[in-house]
Amino acid sequence: MSAPSSVPTVPLDAAAVGEALAAMRGHAPLVQCLTNVVVAQWTANVLLAVGASPSMVDNPEEAGPFAAVADGVLVNLGTPQEATVAAMHGAVSAAAAAGTPWVLDPVGVGGLAWRSRVVVDLLAHASPALVRGNPSEILAFAGGGSGGRGPESVDAAEDALDAGRALAREHGTIVAVSGEVDHLTDGTRLVRVANGHRWLTQVTGGGCALGALMAAFAATTDDPLLAATAATATYTVAAEVAAERAAGPGSFAVALLDSLATLNPQELTEKVVLR
Amino acid sequence: MSAPSSVPTVPLDAAAVGEALAAMRGHAPLVQCLTNVVVAQWTANVLLAVGASPSMVDNPEEAGPFAAVADGVLVNLGTPQEATVAAMHGAVSAAAAAGTPWVLDPVGVGGLAWRSRVVVDLLAHASPALVRGNPSEILAFAGGGSGGRGPESVDAAEDALDAGRALAREHGTIVAVSGEVDHLTDGTRLVRVANGHRWLTQVTGGGCALGALMAAFAATTDDPLLAATAATATYTVAAEVAAERAAGPGSFAVALLDSLATLNPQELTEKVVLR
Amino acid sequence: MSAPSSVPTVPLDAAAVGEALAAMRGHAPLVQCLTNVVVAQWTANVLLAVGASPSMVDNPEEAGPFAAVADGVLVNLGTPQEATVAAMHGAVSAAAAAGTPWVLDPVGVGGLAWRSRVVVDLLAHASPALVRGNPSEILAFAGGGSGGRGPESVDAAEDALDAGRALAREHGTIVAVSGEVDHLTDGTRLVRVANGHRWLTQVTGGGCALGALMAAFAATTDDPLLAATAATATYTVAAEVAAERAAGPGSFAVALLDSLATLNPQELTEKVVLR
Repeated sequence: MSAPSSVPTVPLDAAAVGEALAAMRGHAPLVQCLTNVVVAQWTANVLLAVGASPSMVDNPEEAGPFAAVADGVLVNLGTPQEATVAAMHGAVSAAAAAGTPWVLDPVGVGGLAWRSRVVVDLLAHASPALVRGNPSEILAFAGGGSGGRGPESVDAAEDALDAGRALAREHGTIVAVSGEVDHLTDGTRLVRVANGHRWLTQVTGGGCALGALMAAFAATTDDPLLAATAATATYTVAAEVAAERAAGPGSFAVALLDSLATLNPQELTEKVVLR
Repeated sequence: MSAPSSVPTVPLDAAAVGEALAAMRGHAPLVQCLTNVVVAQWTANVLLAVGASPSMVDNPEEAGPFAAVADGVLVNLGTPQEATVAAMHGAVSAAAAAGTPWVLDPVGVGGLAWRSRVVVDLLAHASPALVRGNPSEILAFAGGGSGGRGPESVDAAEDALDAGRALAREHGTIVAVSGEVDHLTDGTRLVRVANGHRWLTQVTGGGCALGALMAAFAATTDDPLLAATAATATYTVAAEVAAERAAGPGSFAVALLDSLATLNPQELTEKVVLR
Repeated sequence: MSAPSSVPTVPLDAAAVGEALAAMRGHAPLVQCLTNVVVAQWTANVLLAVGASPSMVDNPEEAGPFAAVADGVLVNLGTPQEATVAAMHGAVSAAAAAGTPWVLDPVGVGGLAWRSRVVVDLLAHASPALVRGNPSEILAFAGGGSGGRGPESVDAAEDALDAGRALAREHGTIVAVSGEVDHLTDGTRLVRVANGHRWLTQVTGGGCALGALMAAFAATTDDPLLAATAATATYTVAAEVAAERAAGPGSFAVALLDSLATLNPQELTEKVVLR
C-alpha cells in the first residue's frame, strides 16, 4: 500500500487501450455469463460482435464445472432466482479456485434486501476482479446509499467516487462507476472515460453488457484497471460511432452491434477520451 | 351502475390521448414487469424508448417489496414457472395494499388449465386496473371460449366484446381486446382504436409490451380507460410510423422503438383514429 | 435396412425444397419451443417471420398437455434448469404419444455431464425426428468428442459425418450437422446445403432458431430429411439475402427476419445449393 505500488505497471494511455482490444480479439475468451433473463440475448450478441465467445450456463449442476474451464465469469444480479443464485455460488467458487477473473454487477443492490445478502455471500468466496455499477448501486454497495428504486441511477458518477475508492480498497478490486463520464478506480489510480451516448440508457442491458465485456478483457489483460478501461472504451466509442448512423434507441442498438464488430484498435485509440 | 355514472369523467378524445402521453413522459413511471422470458427484453426496450422506467424483479423474495414502491405492475402469464407465480402473488398483493394499479395479461388462459387457476388465484388479491388480451383469451377468461392453442387468437375483437364488457363489470376493471381494431371497455363506455399494422403480429411480444405500456399509463392517468386508450394509441400510431420505414418484421420492430422515442403528443393526437 | 429402402421417396431436389416452404407456410404449424432463455425471443421471431406459430410453454404443469396439441416440438438444451427439464420430459412423452415430431438440439452436450444425462433420459421416451447440432456436439453425442467448451464448435462438419450417420441409424432419426456447409443425413442418404453466411455465427441463437425451423418443417413434411433440408435451405438462403443488405452482425440479424418473411418458394428453389 506504499506509494510506489500505486504507480501503474501498464500505462493507461490510449495506445494501451487499443492494444488490449487486439489482445482480447486474439484470444476470443470464453465468457460465462450468469446474468438476468432480460439482457441475456443482448449480452451474448455484444460478446459475439466484439469477438469474444459467450456461454450462459447458469444452472446449479453445471455452473461450477463450467466456470472451471471458462476464461472469465460475469455475475449479474438483475433477475436472481433461487436456482441461479445457487449457480452463481458454484461459478464464483470454481472461478476463485481456478484463478479465473470474475466480474460482479450488483444490479439493484441496496434497495432490495435479498439480493444484497446474496452479494455479501458471494463475496465470501473471493473478491471479484471488477465491480461494475451505476452510482446508486456503488453507493448502496459501499453502505452509503439506497440503491435507487430501479435499475436506473439517481446519483452522478462523481458522487459515488469516494464510495467506489473505498470499496476498491476494501475488496482489492476495480470499481467501475457508470455515468455520462465513466469513473474507474483501483482505490488509488483513477481513470475517466468520457465517451458514450445517451441512447445507451434507453437500451435494456446497456450497462449489463459492459460488465460481460469487462470479463472478456479481464481474461486477456494483466492489469484489471486497464481491462475495465479498455472494455469501457470499446463499448462507449462503438456507441458514438453507432449513434451517427441511428435514428433512435432501436436502430442505435442494432448499429452498436455492427460498430463493435468493425471497430479496430487504431480507431479505438484515436477516439477514446481518457481523463 | 345508473346511467350518469357511465358518462366519461375525462373526455376520451384525441387531445386527451396526447396529453396522457405528455403526462406519462413527465412522470417516467417505474413499471415492474412480471412477464415471460421470451418478451422481457422487448418489453423493457419498449418502456425505455417511450420514456418509462422498467424493472423486471420477479423472484418470490423481492417481487412484493418492489411492487410496494413501483408506480405500476404488469403480470403476464406467458411462461409462468412455480417461482415466478409465487412472485406474482407477492407483487399483486403488495400493489393492492399500496393502491398501485396492476395490469393482467392472461396469455394462453383457457387452453391451459394450470395458468387458468393461477389467474383465478391472483384475482382473489384484488382486481386489476386493466386486463389485456386477444379475443380468444378474453373469451376464455370470461368463460366463453377455448383460449386457442397458442398465443395467437382465432377470434375477432368484435366477437369478444360482449364477453369483455361482462368481464369489465364483474371485476370493476378495463378490458382491452386486441385486434385489427382494438376494443377497450369499462363495461359501459367503449373506445375503439383503429391504428396499427399487421407486422405487430409478427414480432414476439407485440401484444405483451402493450400490456406494460398500459401499466405505465395507468400509473400516471386518473381514468384507467383513458390510460388503456392512450397506451394503445401510442403503440399503434408508432407502429404505423415505423411501418413506413421498414421492409419486414425485423426492421419494423427496430423502427418501432425509434418511433416510440420520437413520437410527440401533437403527432399522436393528429394520427390516432378513435371510434 | 435393405438397399431399396434407402432410395428417397421424396426427391430432395431444389424444387421439393421450395414446395416444402410453401406447404409449411400453408399450414402455419404451431411449434412448441422448450429452449434456452438467451435465444427464446430470437427463435420466436424467426418462426413468426417465416410464417409459423411459436409457443414457448415450458413449465412442468403445462408442457405435456401443450405438446399433445402442438404440431411440432423443439427441445434445446442451452440453459436447462430443473423445472424446464421436467417440462421437456412431459413434452417429449406427450409428443411421442401423439405421434408429433420433436427436434433435439443438444447444446453443449458432452462437455457438461448433467445435460448429457438429461439427453439420455429424454431419448428413453422416444427418438426425435431430427437431431441438430454443431460438429463438436454431434461427435460428443455419438461418443467421439468432448463437446467443446462452449456453444461454438471446434470441429468441421465433415469430421462429424461418420458419427452423425451412426447416430442417425442408431436412433432412426435425421442428424443435421451445422457448418460452413451443412451436412444432413438419415444414416444412408446425405444432403449437403452450401448456403449461409459467417455472420450467422455472430448472432446468438443463429443455430438454435434453425432447430425450431426444423420442427416447423417436420410438422408439415412427410420426409424428415426433406424437412431438415428445407429448413436449412430457407434459413441459410435468407441469410445470404440478408447479408447483402447488412453492415455487421446487428443489421444482419434484423435483415434476416425481413428476408425470412419475404423469401418465396421460387427464389428459394433458385438460390439453394444442394450437393
